[in-house]
Amino acid sequence: MTKTPQVVDLAAELARVEQPWSPLVVATLNDYEVKVVRLLGDFVWHAHAETDELFLVLSGSLTIELREPTGERAVSLSAGQLFVVPHGVQHRPRAASEVTAVLIEPRGVLNTGDAG
Amino acid sequence: MTKTPQVVDLAAELARVEQPWSPLVVATLNDYEVKVVRLLGDFVWHAHAETDELFLVLSGSLTIELREPTGERAVSLSAGQLFVVPHGVQHRPRAASEVTAVLIEPRGVLNTGDAG
Repeated sequence: MTKTPQVVDLAAELARVEQPWSPLVVATLNDYEVKVVRLLGDFVWHAHAETDELFLVLSGSLTIELREPTGERAVSLSAGQLFVVPHGVQHRPRAASEVTAVLIEPRGVLNTGDAG
Repeated sequence: MTKTPQVVDLAAELARVEQPWSPLVVATLNDYEVKVVRLLGDFVWHAHAETDELFLVLSGSLTIELREPTGERAVSLSAGQLFVVPHGVQHRPRAASEVTAVLIEPRGVLNTGDAG
């Protein structure tokens, strides 16, 4: 261990985040990062070829559009709901009003994936 | 993908869990499992030599006692707070009243770790 782990208060960490779509790393779990993020508006379509991505909504209502092998669909998540976007699946998060969420994915993953 | 991923409602999943200390896997993220669990009373002291373990409290107040290289301490988590127990650190979760939580760790990890 390089430092003593501390309790992370998600609301307190979110209060430090000023911009939407700018995840803040709040903890690490092996080689994974736990991030908090504010979401507002439409993100870009993108995919992560190598990894799944977990969204856990803390407040607000998040839509994730998906382009799956079987076709397009959209899922909606409210507080206390989570969704794992499978690796390789093009997706676009959308938030008509501000959403706060936890993201979990391996260290070093860009939130824009293959969209750069 | 072996099946179409679905939105997971943590409260609905917790309603399916009858016993404390019996985690229910609700999602997978690559080779990690996301579980919901009810905690009540004192668990056993144990460690996971190979992996960190994430606790995110959804309701109630959870104490985790820790035996770190620098000595013993206890951390307390309430709803919306998380803590990552580093690999190799002996720990004992304790809940005087019922706690609900999310656990995230690699697939196949036993909740009793080296305590068997």
